[in-house]
Amino acid sequence: MSFEGTGYRGRILRVDLSKNKITIQEFDKAFSRLYLGGNGFSIKIILDELNPLIDPFAPENILTFMTGPATGTVIPSTTKFHSASKSPLTGQYFDSMCGGTWARTIKLAGYDGVVIKGKAEEPKLLYISDGYVELKDAHSYWGNKITETQQSLKKDFGEPNLESIVIGPAGENLVRYACLISGLRASGRGGLGAVMGSKKLKAICVNGDGRITLANEDKARDYIRDLVKKLVDAAKALRMVGTPSVVSTVSKLGIWGTRNWREEYFEHWENLSGDALMKSFYTNKNTSCLACPISCGKHSRIVEGKFAGLEARGPEYENIYAFGSICGNSSMEYVIAAVNKCDELGLDTISTGVTIAFAMECFERGLINKEDTGGIELRFGNGEAMLEMIEKIAYRKGFGMILAEGSKRASQIIGKGAEYFAMHVKGLEIPAHSPRGIYSLALGYSTSTRGGSHHDHRPTAEYSIIDRKKIEGKPEWVIEVQHMTAVGDSLTICRFTERALGFALTEDYVKIVNLATGFNINLIELKTIGERIYNMERLFNVKCGLTRKDDILPKRLMIEPIPEGPSKGMHVTPEVLEMMKDKYYKLRGWDKNTGAPTIEKLKALSII
Amino acid sequence: MSFEGTGYRGRILRVDLSKNKITIQEFDKAFSRLYLGGNGFSIKIILDELNPLIDPFAPENILTFMTGPATGTVIPSTTKFHSASKSPLTGQYFDSMCGGTWARTIKLAGYDGVVIKGKAEEPKLLYISDGYVELKDAHSYWGNKITETQQSLKKDFGEPNLESIVIGPAGENLVRYACLISGLRASGRGGLGAVMGSKKLKAICVNGDGRITLANEDKARDYIRDLVKKLVDAAKALRMVGTPSVVSTVSKLGIWGTRNWREEYFEHWENLSGDALMKSFYTNKNTSCLACPISCGKHSRIVEGKFAGLEARGPEYENIYAFGSICGNSSMEYVIAAVNKCDELGLDTISTGVTIAFAMECFERGLINKEDTGGIELRFGNGEAMLEMIEKIAYRKGFGMILAEGSKRASQIIGKGAEYFAMHVKGLEIPAHSPRGIYSLALGYSTSTRGGSHHDHRPTAEYSIIDRKKIEGKPEWVIEVQHMTAVGDSLTICRFTERALGFALTEDYVKIVNLATGFNINLIELKTIGERIYNMERLFNVKCGLTRKDDILPKRLMIEPIPEGPSKGMHVTPEVLEMMKDKYYKLRGWDKNTGAPTIEKLKALSII
Repeated sequence: MSFEGTGYRGRILRVDLSKNKITIQEFDKAFSRLYLGGNGFSIKIILDELNPLIDPFAPENILTFMTGPATGTVIPSTTKFHSASKSPLTGQYFDSMCGGTWARTIKLAGYDGVVIKGKAEEPKLLYISDGYVELKDAHSYWGNKITETQQSLKKDFGEPNLESIVIGPAGENLVRYACLISGLRASGRGGLGAVMGSKKLKAICVNGDGRITLANEDKARDYIRDLVKKLVDAAKALRMVGTPSVVSTVSKLGIWGTRNWREEYFEHWENLSGDALMKSFYTNKNTSCLACPISCGKHSRIVEGKFAGLEARGPEYENIYAFGSICGNSSMEYVIAAVNKCDELGLDTISTGVTIAFAMECFERGLINKEDTGGIELRFGNGEAMLEMIEKIAYRKGFGMILAEGSKRASQIIGKGAEYFAMHVKGLEIPAHSPRGIYSLALGYSTSTRGGSHHDHRPTAEYSIIDRKKIEGKPEWVIEVQHMTAVGDSLTICRFTERALGFALTEDYVKIVNLATGFNINLIELKTIGERIYNMERLFNVKCGLTRKDDILPKRLMIEPIPEGPSKGMHVTPEVLEMMKDKYYKLRGWDKNTGAPTIEKLKALSII
Repeated sequence: MSFEGTGYRGRILRVDLSKNKITIQEFDKAFSRLYLGGNGFSIKIILDELNPLIDPFAPENILTFMTGPATGTVIPSTTKFHSASKSPLTGQYFDSMCGGTWARTIKLAGYDGVVIKGKAEEPKLLYISDGYVELKDAHSYWGNKITETQQSLKKDFGEPNLESIVIGPAGENLVRYACLISGLRASGRGGLGAVMGSKKLKAICVNGDGRITLANEDKARDYIRDLVKKLVDAAKALRMVGTPSVVSTVSKLGIWGTRNWREEYFEHWENLSGDALMKSFYTNKNTSCLACPISCGKHSRIVEGKFAGLEARGPEYENIYAFGSICGNSSMEYVIAAVNKCDELGLDTISTGVTIAFAMECFERGLINKEDTGGIELRFGNGEAMLEMIEKIAYRKGFGMILAEGSKRASQIIGKGAEYFAMHVKGLEIPAHSPRGIYSLALGYSTSTRGGSHHDHRPTAEYSIIDRKKIEGKPEWVIEVQHMTAVGDSLTICRFTERALGFALTEDYVKIVNLATGFNINLIELKTIGERIYNMERLFNVKCGLTRKDDILPKRLMIEPIPEGPSKGMHVTPEVLEMMKDKYYKLRGWDKNTGAPTIEKLKALSII
């Protein structure tokens, strides 16, 4: 086998649900050197095989599940799986990563990834056990929530270690921001769970017994020992407190989306901080992806009150934003309860929370009223209303039908100028990091393949080493980071390793790639891989109809400066954003009018 | 002037609302000979200038208002204006015709048409008085209903003969099937009123003082005398009773969409017939488009009961379907009241009625309930519910927000399998004529540029001279008729002339074209013009994402035969439809897999 001694299996499982057909696609070293794995594999397949103009819920849509070359090897923090599709939320290429152990297991079963096409007539699940692959009836799981589904799958198959990716009721009901769940982790964003639901696929279950040995495991181990140490040091706060440690950072800077981004300083932030969580809710239980030294996952328990006894994963920083500051809710209990509900129903917490916050602002401004919401007082800070709406969204009931469409579409359905209050980029609700308070992020969100995502460009460096208020040099920086994330998602390496490996591509990334693949590439080639992948994503989106005009922030965030708090007055005006974009397109070799990659650029990157 | 002695003005008014810029585009004989006028001009401009991937509500969308070469001349039944855009309902090219006298007036003002691009910041109206053109503030009209708007325009300008095209609240609120209204007539379908609303354009007002004389008026007059006689004879029922005469025809055949197409025989049809209308509601007042000998427009008055005193135009056959049979309502009073409400709010009656009927079926099947509808008992036959929903749709209130999206999108928003009950083709709600009871119409609706429209392929011949139950020969026939309608909409000639001129293109059409244009073309060239225009429409739609898979009927109508009545058992199965499509694409020179015109075909028609 040509991939012996590398992390690759050289095989992708192909499943056509319409035809009930399962095949294996083999790939070669040329393919893997151009596209690396994960995201690179996904975009290559989607760009080659998917008509960009189809409806995301059409059977023709493609849903990929990919691993990286290091997944399942001794190299740490690479056991995420990468999933991609044409998103029902953005109508464009969308990819999302998910931690846990599914990725490792599919590698052990002998595959680098799974590609799903078509649509089953009746609910199905995909069962993979090493060489054995079958589409099984899934009627008995359809309609079930996440934990119940996961548990009955393990029980019914009699395999306590069975790994699964499942969808909940939200995915079945095609909520446009339904997520995928694997173990305790989510592939949250972009509605990939709804795509899986549209295909009537409830779960992908995997057992794997194989083993992956790198050619030079000993050499790898030496490097890894150092790497682990570096990771542990660099990600100390993540290891101790988890992502909620960011709450105090952004609150002290006054750059935290509050009450639908009307504000950026939440006066009750201390109730929602990492410290508050540690003190009153932390169970002393951590979960990590397989063999990850960071171990960022924390667990909470509510001790008293209405939700007494509720145990849940997290909440993470983004969850606390989604059901805390952005909805004006200061109760950690309601945050935990809301997150738990989303996890059980299979909803992306960020899009859910931001969409509810949007509706709250519409309600407070009288664009909608209790007659529209079915009697719910949808006001900022109303935790009960939040919980009720989550349930209604997942089951498309009453006003939940409208919010299930996401904030962009919901704002169009509501009309009356509601679009101004929909906080999305390209249809994707924006996360907690502030594009007003971090200038590179204004350009980063705008030009992101995914839309309002903090995983194309990253804000992390600007919390520490980079001046967040400077415009100069930011187009260059955004491009560097976008190439890092494109490579990172192709390696399927956890983004939190950036603290040790670098916010842009470095020799450390090169080392990891070479250890896993044996390619012996250099930093220039790795950066080119990142650029190639980012341009392929862009090309697909242009074919979906994307133009320069879509590279834009929510209007409010461009014309209203931060109104109060430590960062009062900050924002990137439309003029400045357009200036940054001019520079950005020029550096990228993209047409400044259309925002499309030029033919020369595509040729230079071997895309066409 | 090169067009002297022909019906053309050679000038199209171009308005860019974003830039507040007005220019004049001149065209030459080569252009007019290739594209004729009306629809041909519209699709040429849209195909050349509009990015097919934009959102229909984006400022970039184009909205055309075109006349034909015979408009304003002595040739009768040609005073319709043709309007086209990328439709917010179908997401593809869409055109619609509207009677009245606006078309003649814009010709007299010196223009063959008006093309609108861009979007105004604040409500505007376009005022044209011969050579004087201005964009005026329209705040005082914004929000007003149709009659009020029309009347205050005439009053404010002090011009009782001012001709206008206006939108109502539905257009302003971007209801996806809002219409344009001119005088007492509507350019009903496809949501062109919403496109106008998205541009913040309330009205296009015209005064025109010019005169159009054909080169050989005397020769024309001889022919026209005969033509008028032929029209009067052939369209007798239309002249006497108007379009409601069709109610008894289709009811006796048992092919009339009833209760959301669950059935096709409405047991109360006699309450809704032309005779019933004539007997109890007809005011003895007729309206016709300028100098039309058919004079199909009737007027009604409700004498007693709840709506006593209400006077209204129509109702037309399609209106009676939309608020009668399809909603299971047997009261002509409620039909008249509903039509009047739509006319005042600026809603397409067909899409409104069919969308409400869809919601009624969802309600009766428990997919939605009173909690969703805001307390409305949305059951078949509930006239009050119908009226309430119309109001809520136009103002996007409560459940009306969802129905304002049209039945296709509403069914996706509701979820739970509601899509099966949405009676649309390509997003456009189907009209009254039965694709189960008239087999050519199954292919006609499926392959229609517009979607569920009876104005690409026509059912008329099958009520008289053609066997509606035969499959053989229908692909050929559909193509012939589609070319007739493409030419008809380019001449902007009323479809009802088909009864005299022919259901497919004939020497009579050639005669009219030559009289108006002086081109001296023959029937072969005229058919080629029809084919060219239909292929251009198709090409644009393919660029919007259309594929063979979209050439399809609502599933119900393919798998459920007509359940009761004289035509019990009839339907076109998916297999038969696909067989007809195979033949159709082959005859058309379209790729049988993608449904796209081949390069050879496009070249042969001088499209590329």
